[in-house]
Amino acid sequence: MVNARNKKLGEARSVIREIFEYGNARKREIGADKVFDFSIGNPGVPAPGEVNEEIVRLVNTMPSLALHGYTSAAGAPEVREAVARYIRTAFGVPMSAEGVYMTCGAAASLTITLNALCEEGDEFVVITPCFPEYGVFIESAGGKVVTAATGEDFHPDLAALDAAVGAHTKGVILNSPNNPTGAVYSVQELAAIAGLLRRKSAQRGAPVFLIADEPYRELTYGAEVPYPMAFYENTVVCYSFSKSLSLAGERIGYIAASPQCAAAADVFSAVCGAGRALGFVCAPALFQRVVATCLGKSGDVEEYRANRDLLLHTLQRCGFVCIPPEGAFYLFVRSPEPDAAAFCERAKKYELLLVPSDGFGVKGYVRISYCVERAVIERAAPAFEALAKEYGL
Amino acid sequence: MVNARNKKLGEARSVIREIFEYGNARKREIGADKVFDFSIGNPGVPAPGEVNEEIVRLVNTMPSLALHGYTSAAGAPEVREAVARYIRTAFGVPMSAEGVYMTCGAAASLTITLNALCEEGDEFVVITPCFPEYGVFIESAGGKVVTAATGEDFHPDLAALDAAVGAHTKGVILNSPNNPTGAVYSVQELAAIAGLLRRKSAQRGAPVFLIADEPYRELTYGAEVPYPMAFYENTVVCYSFSKSLSLAGERIGYIAASPQCAAAADVFSAVCGAGRALGFVCAPALFQRVVATCLGKSGDVEEYRANRDLLLHTLQRCGFVCIPPEGAFYLFVRSPEPDAAAFCERAKKYELLLVPSDGFGVKGYVRISYCVERAVIERAAPAFEALAKEYGL
Repeated sequence: MVNARNKKLGEARSVIREIFEYGNARKREIGADKVFDFSIGNPGVPAPGEVNEEIVRLVNTMPSLALHGYTSAAGAPEVREAVARYIRTAFGVPMSAEGVYMTCGAAASLTITLNALCEEGDEFVVITPCFPEYGVFIESAGGKVVTAATGEDFHPDLAALDAAVGAHTKGVILNSPNNPTGAVYSVQELAAIAGLLRRKSAQRGAPVFLIADEPYRELTYGAEVPYPMAFYENTVVCYSFSKSLSLAGERIGYIAASPQCAAAADVFSAVCGAGRALGFVCAPALFQRVVATCLGKSGDVEEYRANRDLLLHTLQRCGFVCIPPEGAFYLFVRSPEPDAAAFCERAKKYELLLVPSDGFGVKGYVRISYCVERAVIERAAPAFEALAKEYGL
Repeated sequence: MVNARNKKLGEARSVIREIFEYGNARKREIGADKVFDFSIGNPGVPAPGEVNEEIVRLVNTMPSLALHGYTSAAGAPEVREAVARYIRTAFGVPMSAEGVYMTCGAAASLTITLNALCEEGDEFVVITPCFPEYGVFIESAGGKVVTAATGEDFHPDLAALDAAVGAHTKGVILNSPNNPTGAVYSVQELAAIAGLLRRKSAQRGAPVFLIADEPYRELTYGAEVPYPMAFYENTVVCYSFSKSLSLAGERIGYIAASPQCAAAADVFSAVCGAGRALGFVCAPALFQRVVATCLGKSGDVEEYRANRDLLLHTLQRCGFVCIPPEGAFYLFVRSPEPDAAAFCERAKKYELLLVPSDGFGVKGYVRISYCVERAVIERAAPAFEALAKEYGL
């Protein structure tokens, strides 16, 4: 009676959202301070002051109709120009406003890009562990998901990528800084991936696109984050301000398609068409203008660094094993039993809400989002200790 | 190399957006005051004062993280509750927060609803003339478009509707107050349509859903706008605040699925799943809270009435023929030559930007959006006169 696939997607929700909703309900039951919700990537440091200042300034100075009315489908011209100028200046690549399409956040950037590129029979490669919704977005666009596992260090495994990219590969999704592992790919890695994709494109006689999902670009702890477009011509950057500016609920981001990519005009037309077909119309007008004045800025990354250090220290003291993340705000911790879901269920007894790694495409880990208030980590320490004891760590 | 359908959609843009973009370019060329752009439904009266007041109040009083962070996918609980309460109170129908899903505006409400309902082989009926994007949205969801023409008065023709709704009809899109004609359907018409759909549902052994697209509900000139859900159980209301609150660029609206509709829980699950698959995540968080305090309100409708009266007077004095609209902010005017596109091209010579009716599913009319500054109508009068003279009116 209804669309079966979407019914199932709606019933299942994402694993992350499921735990997040459970946490909200649990907080209402026993009090917010007693639940240690490490499930969702909802930024935990306030938006930089400029954001609210700019909102109030715009509301007080710009005529209501100009401020709140439709923009062009691809975005307000001055906003697209500002984004293009920022990309040129910050990353030293050619970019023009004609390749910038403002979106309702990262998910929209990805669904629009995938629907723009996907033809019948196309495959898209994801590097696992990866954000679970990639699979939903690829399949909803009509594509097939192919996985390439990282090495144990969570960095790309060139041999695995070589095996995964074939004649039907339309694109590869790259996510650095990475959710869920916090890995940041190096200049050497980007160069090697570019070389591989160039070779594969030549082999299949059509470009393999690099879809760079970059919501965590500004959130790093010292590591340089090379710009994929500088390494590979067939790159489409899917950016979001959700994490950098702590605006996850406001749904604002952009697609930047390299002017040097194959059939650049067709790619951009297809992006516009996909946005239209999916019902996006334009990105939120007020926040388009807000982010244009905050490009490259972020909330206080030092807060995340302090959280990371405290949580790492707490977990390592308890005997848990994980690789220190170089960016983003997630710890990817080895589960002390092979079944990560069972481990997460046991953690729930201590009101610790962790996300099992199965949805990220690997077994035996949990993701812990540390974009929370410091006090949550402090209060959670005894719970982690008790949990570790259960496993004899 | 890219998705052909979306490339085509992106190249073609909507006819309306095409003219709107032409108008923007033309204004830069010859000056904004010399172009008479009647193409787009971008509200022309400012958002009610409460909107900007509420934005500033929220920014100044609500913690940044709570204000700008993710809400639940279906919306912030207190916002969904406020919308449900408003619907119960204003329209006397049962409605609970569980049936309310906050969206990124009318287009999103429609694409999510269509993707939620559409199964293979499904047809959706639109009553023509209608908003051109209905066809794009239905086909993108995998459905087939079936049309039922209105009578000459632009009100539903029950016989045509009877012929259009068949064994494969999953839903009928109803739009009152109507874009492009301004018609408002009466209590008697709603009751008759409900009876027809009930009969058809029984015949096919499965519900025919009524999808009520209602962005113009509050914009009427005296006519009552009956609430479809009060007449027919299998109703899904697709609402947007774009026109009522003059927030077209901010992308905020909702889906309200009747708790009395068939398989209500499945319908809502499928709505959640479709929203997820299309990449919506949640509706813009700040504006969810803004609209919750402005339910049922609108910009100054008297401004639109004055525009309507002035434009009607101007056009009728020139000899053009049209039915006075009862709601929304469009005049649907008979083209003095059979080819409406040719008429619109001729109008362009006088910098009059009108939209030919072909895209709305009928021939021989033009849509004139009068949600413009009064001065545009005043300044356009000589242009309309000159155009009429060309046709010997």
